[in-house]
Amino acid sequence: MIAFADRAAFLAALDALPAASAEAQAAAQARQGELTKPAGSLGRLEDLAVFMAGWQASARPQLDRVRAVVFAGNHGVAARGVSAFPVEVTAQMVANFAAGGAAINVLARGCGAELSVVPLDLDRPTGDIAQEPAMCEAECLAALNAGAAAAAPDTQLLLLGEMGIGNTTPAAALCAAAFGGDAAPWCGHGTGIDSAGLSRKVAAVASALALHGDHCGDPFELLRRLGGREIAAIAGAVLAARLQRVPVLLDGFIVCAAIAPLVASNPDLAAHCVAAHSSAEAAHERLLACLGLEPLLRLGLRLGEGSGAALAVPLVHAALATHDEMATFAEAMVATA
Amino acid sequence: MIAFADRAAFLAALDALPAASAEAQAAAQARQGELTKPAGSLGRLEDLAVFMAGWQASARPQLDRVRAVVFAGNHGVAARGVSAFPVEVTAQMVANFAAGGAAINVLARGCGAELSVVPLDLDRPTGDIAQEPAMCEAECLAALNAGAAAAAPDTQLLLLGEMGIGNTTPAAALCAAAFGGDAAPWCGHGTGIDSAGLSRKVAAVASALALHGDHCGDPFELLRRLGGREIAAIAGAVLAARLQRVPVLLDGFIVCAAIAPLVASNPDLAAHCVAAHSSAEAAHERLLACLGLEPLLRLGLRLGEGSGAALAVPLVHAALATHDEMATFAEAMVATA
Repeated sequence: MIAFADRAAFLAALDALPAASAEAQAAAQARQGELTKPAGSLGRLEDLAVFMAGWQASARPQLDRVRAVVFAGNHGVAARGVSAFPVEVTAQMVANFAAGGAAINVLARGCGAELSVVPLDLDRPTGDIAQEPAMCEAECLAALNAGAAAAAPDTQLLLLGEMGIGNTTPAAALCAAAFGGDAAPWCGHGTGIDSAGLSRKVAAVASALALHGDHCGDPFELLRRLGGREIAAIAGAVLAARLQRVPVLLDGFIVCAAIAPLVASNPDLAAHCVAAHSSAEAAHERLLACLGLEPLLRLGLRLGEGSGAALAVPLVHAALATHDEMATFAEAMVATA
Repeated sequence: MIAFADRAAFLAALDALPAASAEAQAAAQARQGELTKPAGSLGRLEDLAVFMAGWQASARPQLDRVRAVVFAGNHGVAARGVSAFPVEVTAQMVANFAAGGAAINVLARGCGAELSVVPLDLDRPTGDIAQEPAMCEAECLAALNAGAAAAAPDTQLLLLGEMGIGNTTPAAALCAAAFGGDAAPWCGHGTGIDSAGLSRKVAAVASALALHGDHCGDPFELLRRLGGREIAAIAGAVLAARLQRVPVLLDGFIVCAAIAPLVASNPDLAAHCVAAHSSAEAAHERLLACLGLEPLLRLGLRLGEGSGAALAVPLVHAALATHDEMATFAEAMVATA
């Protein structure tokens, strides 16, 4: 299991990323050209098969162990009225996850993913980023390592999700700090806030950027000052997954924002990640472009929890099943173009 | 089982379409608002749940019987070199379907759909639409009824696909005749034809439109003159499904083109249809707009066979599973916004 000893170890890992197997990718690409279909006609499915081949270092990748991890955290900035829901809902939804009644429970079952939920100090919200850092160094490291611990090395596809009332606000702040731009274009309606709430959100993000902007020299500091526990955990999980060559299905705006500081520091960071979807949150599309990721789905989702990631799993299964099980032109005695 | 006695019966059916249950839709919509998620946050999944509720006339629709039917036909116009593949491939692929080695075999298994393949007189290609009608009246009626017969009334979701070397050419002609425009914007690279082949295709479609354009007074005549057997079968299946309130997942450009004449005649025809995807065929996006359908997926597919429809099935399953299995706010004791 991966654990980062300190800030320096986390930053060092980010600069020593392993690569996918070019050999397995080439072998998978060659097989795609032999299957009974016009070359390229399975579109993104072909890309997914080659992607999985590379990270699994196998020309015929398999998908038996899919794991979904939902991290939950609470945010001091939520007291500013930046969410449509009261902060108690984070813990209530964690109880709903435990009871099996939330969307991600149903969707994880449906796609064959093993679900775990990691609540992170819910009764101790992070600092209000509009007036202080979200976390001290030890808290941020603990959150990163809680994420890293969730990336088990035998996972064949890791789905990451989150729950945290108010967490589109730190997510927007992270995006602005990592990729530039004013607060407003990174702020959206989240789970359904009204225009007054959106104004409060933009103001909170602007204050946070003014306060911390000149003090974010590295990705760790960005996550510590502007993030949150579930956000840092996602960043830790994505980096730990990469170190173990475990491919990741990213969910919505917050999950993508969690890796924004990492990608801004090392653009190759997201090479083992697939964007499951582009959500209804307005800034998600822009964020995906900054991350260099083209989403698999655009279904107008804005729920979080890893719901979009779970919905994309059948596409990965379909990609690997066609890759593995289809006949070749020679086997089926079908004429080629 | 539905069968159309003659052209007049087919046209009469098109003008007497049953509607979805508004009561079941309203009940499903109300339930969506009670589930533990922000209102509307499951996006297209919520629409799918309400759609299925309406056609199943049940507030809690189920999805146990999914059927995929692939119609295959051969085309006289293929002799003009409008495809990247030789015409023998239609029958070879039908054999591949029977042996279980094609993409749709793998994808139907993966999504739990029962697959049937209906080859339609493969050794007797239709007339070359650039110089004669594709079919006589009896042939067209037989093809429509072959399609209608495939729409079993206890089907809960019907997936339609096709195989037919050269069939993007009649599909393009049908689109132009039904919705207007010159030949070229409706013609694309199909399974991968080069630019010379594309020029031959545009010329064939233009000739067909010039020859038949003034003689296509009704949807039957459009299908008869410009279509093909598998195309007419798809039109028959979609209409028969509607008469039995069976919802349909449409596949790619050719399947959508098959209903173009029907929708041009009665815009309500596609109300029981969901567009599974928008394919890489350039004109498909435009055709979907003419049909008033927003596709679920955009994955760059260009295979046909019902492959895109099969890939969308897990989304319908996910829509109905979340609708049926999620806890309500009251059940889970979660605070509302």
